[in-house]
Amino acid sequence: MSKPPISRFPVPEISDLPEDIRTRILAVQEKSGFVPNVFLVLARRPDEFRAFFAYHDALMEKPGNLTKAEREMIVVATSNANQCQYCVVAHGAILRIRAKNPLIADQVAINYRKADITPRQKAMLDFAMKVSFEAYAVGDADIESLAAHGFTEDDVWDIAAIAAFFSMSNRLANVTSMRPNDEFYSLGRG
Amino acid sequence: MSKPPISRFPVPEISDLPEDIRTRILAVQEKSGFVPNVFLVLARRPDEFRAFFAYHDALMEKPGNLTKAEREMIVVATSNANQCQYCVVAHGAILRIRAKNPLIADQVAINYRKADITPRQKAMLDFAMKVSFEAYAVGDADIESLAAHGFTEDDVWDIAAIAAFFSMSNRLANVTSMRPNDEFYSLGRG
Amino acid sequence: MSKPPISRFPVPEISDLPEDIRTRILAVQEKSGFVPNVFLVLARRPDEFRAFFAYHDALMEKPGNLTKAEREMIVVATSNANQCQYCVVAHGAILRIRAKNPLIADQVAINYRKADITPRQKAMLDFAMKVSFEAYAVGDADIESLAAHGFTEDDVWDIAAIAAFFSMSNRLANVTSMRPNDEFYSLGRG
Amino acid sequence: MSKPPISRFPVPEISDLPEDIRTRILAVQEKSGFVPNVFLVLARRPDEFRAFFAYHDALMEKPGNLTKAEREMIVVATSNANQCQYCVVAHGAILRIRAKNPLIADQVAINYRKADITPRQKAMLDFAMKVSFEAYAVGDADIESLAAHGFTEDDVWDIAAIAAFFSMSNRLANVTSMRPNDEFYSLGRG
Amino acid sequence: MSKPPISRFPVPEISDLPEDIRTRILAVQEKSGFVPNVFLVLARRPDEFRAFFAYHDALMEKPGNLTKAEREMIVVATSNANQCQYCVVAHGAILRIRAKNPLIADQVAINYRKADITPRQKAMLDFAMKVSFEAYAVGDADIESLAAHGFTEDDVWDIAAIAAFFSMSNRLANVTSMRPNDEFYSLGRG
Amino acid sequence: MSKPPISRFPVPEISDLPEDIRTRILAVQEKSGFVPNVFLVLARRPDEFRAFFAYHDALMEKPGNLTKAEREMIVVATSNANQCQYCVVAHGAILRIRAKNPLIADQVAINYRKADITPRQKAMLDFAMKVSFEAYAVGDADIESLAAHGFTEDDVWDIAAIAAFFSMSNRLANVTSMRPNDEFYSLGRG
Repeated sequence: MSKPPISRFPVPEISDLPEDIRTRILAVQEKSGFVPNVFLVLARRPDEFRAFFAYHDALMEKPGNLTKAEREMIVVATSNANQCQYCVVAHGAILRIRAKNPLIADQVAINYRKADITPRQKAMLDFAMKVSFEAYAVGDADIESLAAHGFTEDDVWDIAAIAAFFSMSNRLANVTSMRPNDEFYSLGRG
Repeated sequence: MSKPPISRFPVPEISDLPEDIRTRILAVQEKSGFVPNVFLVLARRPDEFRAFFAYHDALMEKPGNLTKAEREMIVVATSNANQCQYCVVAHGAILRIRAKNPLIADQVAINYRKADITPRQKAMLDFAMKVSFEAYAVGDADIESLAAHGFTEDDVWDIAAIAAFFSMSNRLANVTSMRPNDEFYSLGRG
Repeated sequence: MSKPPISRFPVPEISDLPEDIRTRILAVQEKSGFVPNVFLVLARRPDEFRAFFAYHDALMEKPGNLTKAEREMIVVATSNANQCQYCVVAHGAILRIRAKNPLIADQVAINYRKADITPRQKAMLDFAMKVSFEAYAVGDADIESLAAHGFTEDDVWDIAAIAAFFSMSNRLANVTSMRPNDEFYSLGRG
Repeated sequence: MSKPPISRFPVPEISDLPEDIRTRILAVQEKSGFVPNVFLVLARRPDEFRAFFAYHDALMEKPGNLTKAEREMIVVATSNANQCQYCVVAHGAILRIRAKNPLIADQVAINYRKADITPRQKAMLDFAMKVSFEAYAVGDADIESLAAHGFTEDDVWDIAAIAAFFSMSNRLANVTSMRPNDEFYSLGRG
Repeated sequence: MSKPPISRFPVPEISDLPEDIRTRILAVQEKSGFVPNVFLVLARRPDEFRAFFAYHDALMEKPGNLTKAEREMIVVATSNANQCQYCVVAHGAILRIRAKNPLIADQVAINYRKADITPRQKAMLDFAMKVSFEAYAVGDADIESLAAHGFTEDDVWDIAAIAAFFSMSNRLANVTSMRPNDEFYSLGRG
Repeated sequence: MSKPPISRFPVPEISDLPEDIRTRILAVQEKSGFVPNVFLVLARRPDEFRAFFAYHDALMEKPGNLTKAEREMIVVATSNANQCQYCVVAHGAILRIRAKNPLIADQVAINYRKADITPRQKAMLDFAMKVSFEAYAVGDADIESLAAHGFTEDDVWDIAAIAAFFSMSNRLANVTSMRPNDEFYSLGRG
């Protein structure tokens, strides 16, 4: 059986892309050994591509109190609740690598309440799930309860912004039927 | 009673902002007569601010088959379902202005199925609501049903991307308790 | 484009209505300057019309601890959650007028948790929403929590009865596709 | 164990009630052999009592194409979905009596799709449930599908109005913790 | 009208069944005076029949702190929430008999929060409902709250296992359209 | 950090178990190289253990038109929707092995609509999800739509019974906090 398409929409050739986008994609390929499909699927719209990755990097690669693994936990937990195949598989791989733990991504995806993570991390994910599914009800009590776990005002913003960004990202991936690269499934499994 | 804060988080002074952000804000102020609070609330994080507005403009100000009023309808319908005060009030004003119709924003916000819009626009909003609330179930049948109303592949992307972007935006506004400027409530009401 | 109908069902001529109903409608018209469509749409069934407005007045015009504006807040918050265009638009106008506040109706409709109202009023609306959406779970703890805000037994009945009455009213308006009069949209906006 | 109260709120003595209400209650007692608790619980508020029963009778005792048993089916199916003990038990009894069928009330309450009723009656209940739980989505297709079963415009109004009235009634009964009289449980079973 | 079928699937003749199953069915018939339809419907699959009833008996007939009536309360409350006609009607009869209370089954089925049961039994049913509808969220706090009512670790297991078993049973009965025997409706009504 | 417990409840020593259970467990250990935790967690209740595995085997190991991989797909898809860590991880491993496909389990778990499976298998999973989450609404149309994909009456029973059995199993695993063995995570991936 031939390989299924990576998007419901036509995908541009890398060689046809604007210079900056092509350069970014080639750099990722060099580093990872393959081009994650999200780059190819979103490249259909160069301006949206640029904004998407600028936003992504501002949230996921920035310094701050949340570790990079913790940021990925937020992605993995909320994305499975949104049934987003691309985000769970791709960010699950990144989570395993960043946490150096081959079990954690599946645990966090399926039911983070049972995962091998700290109570502080569970509180972080409780809040991230509330942002994803009932942000309208977020109130002072939520912030106080995060503060009790040591989360600062900037940490709260980070958790909320990551959950919000992937609320967007999950919907884009589901509508485009974005296919995770086969490589992601086994990365970081030990 | 003193004016309630426009954000749960500290808001920077315009004069302390990076040059590009300050310039953008002053330009908006010049054009609109006031600074919409979203600019001030998000300016706390310059990189995220830049990405947010680049993304916003790529979706809302771009050419394409969807009119600007139709793009705003997507924002207004999905944002009320997410109980996002800022987005309904601010984009409701823009919708009234762009559609030159003082009634349409309230109609679309409360129950777009009863609004004075075309069957094609209702189909567009049915799809936008599906993207916002059950994107995991979007499939070929949805695309075909949009095509029957004349929506192209690019239109489908636009509708989905706008609904997805405001899924993010609604969550940010709800978590920050972003307050709509008083000016928006009456704009475009005729 | 011709004006859309005010009801999915045929609407009687005012001149054909029973004397008491005609008199009531003309009195409203005299007072308001127009006939709110709910009178015309429900007049199709005179006995139900009489019971409906007798009930409405017993709840909304009666003396008691809840102000008239507070009663309207209950209507507006629960009706938007039920996506009832007529009730949000018409009672939103009444709320703005009774509260002498041009912003309050939109705030309460979209997300009352973020509205410029008192903690006591938020507690009132929390309870009204529970009555509207999970009345089966109302218990002693809810009554005690209202009492802590100073609500008496009679106030609790009032809040519950208003929420219950508009649960009915919202459904009637949605099934009949009852159209709000254009006049309501701008009333009380200052 | 002493008998539990019939309401969370104080219940007036029959002898203290306004003449018209007392007369109605005594007439019911004469006819049924007992006073259904709804009369006593709601008598606390005479004006609301009068409007409630006027509305009830206008919907449940009126002539029309729906049989009295069919009207009760609507009450029983929607009230169980709302977890309203009083309405399911009391109207279940009336349904058994009116349908002369000792099994039908439990069947309709628990899952009307499996009840011994006609396809036309199932269509009626499908619509009543939609009115009770997602009236905002009722549209032309629903009306057409009822018409295909022979329901007229007036029948549609009746079904919707009964479902709407008991949406109110269920909430009142749940908030007041209205207790069904013991007599209702066994009426019409033998 | 001829009797409706007791299952969507073909039902075997008792005489064609394996010896052990036939013997069990005849013993039930001898004891109850009729064969509950669940035996005939499930007999289509002898191995599943044997496992089903072995499991059922291990949970419902075993010694322990929960009374037999309490076990049936769990079945009745969760089965009505699952809209399972067979389980509510058949186990409702058993509950009335075991509790020697003709009202309790309808009360527990419709809204156990309003039933004539103890606070300890309400806590038991709160937990059973959580197991049935959001088991993923069960945590230490639930167990502690049961312990405060005197429930042991084994009692917790019993409540959870009964709720879990009838989550299966309700789905089987709904898919097979398993019809309750007419006898059950009036059993134990006094 | 010491290994987290495999159950919220005490787990018996294998050597203390009844002979038949001990024998079964040792046989599994011999075959798999480890004892899946479900055997140890459920062994606390020997009679329930025997019924559980008899039922499991009757559904999962029996001959029939559904392949063993297809049976596992039902488990994996419904268990992730129920957030059951044990069932997704353990049956995900079995699915990978039986389907000889290292990607399929994650795909089916997260969003089976996007998995590399046939339209017939998607129809099977649509039905399994309906059985798991709204069995009360299963009707003739569902059976006909399965028949159109070639599923026989016995296949329908199999799909429904597997979905129903794991509705039970998921709840048991979530309440006991049953921990998947580390071995399962990587089985069949390479």
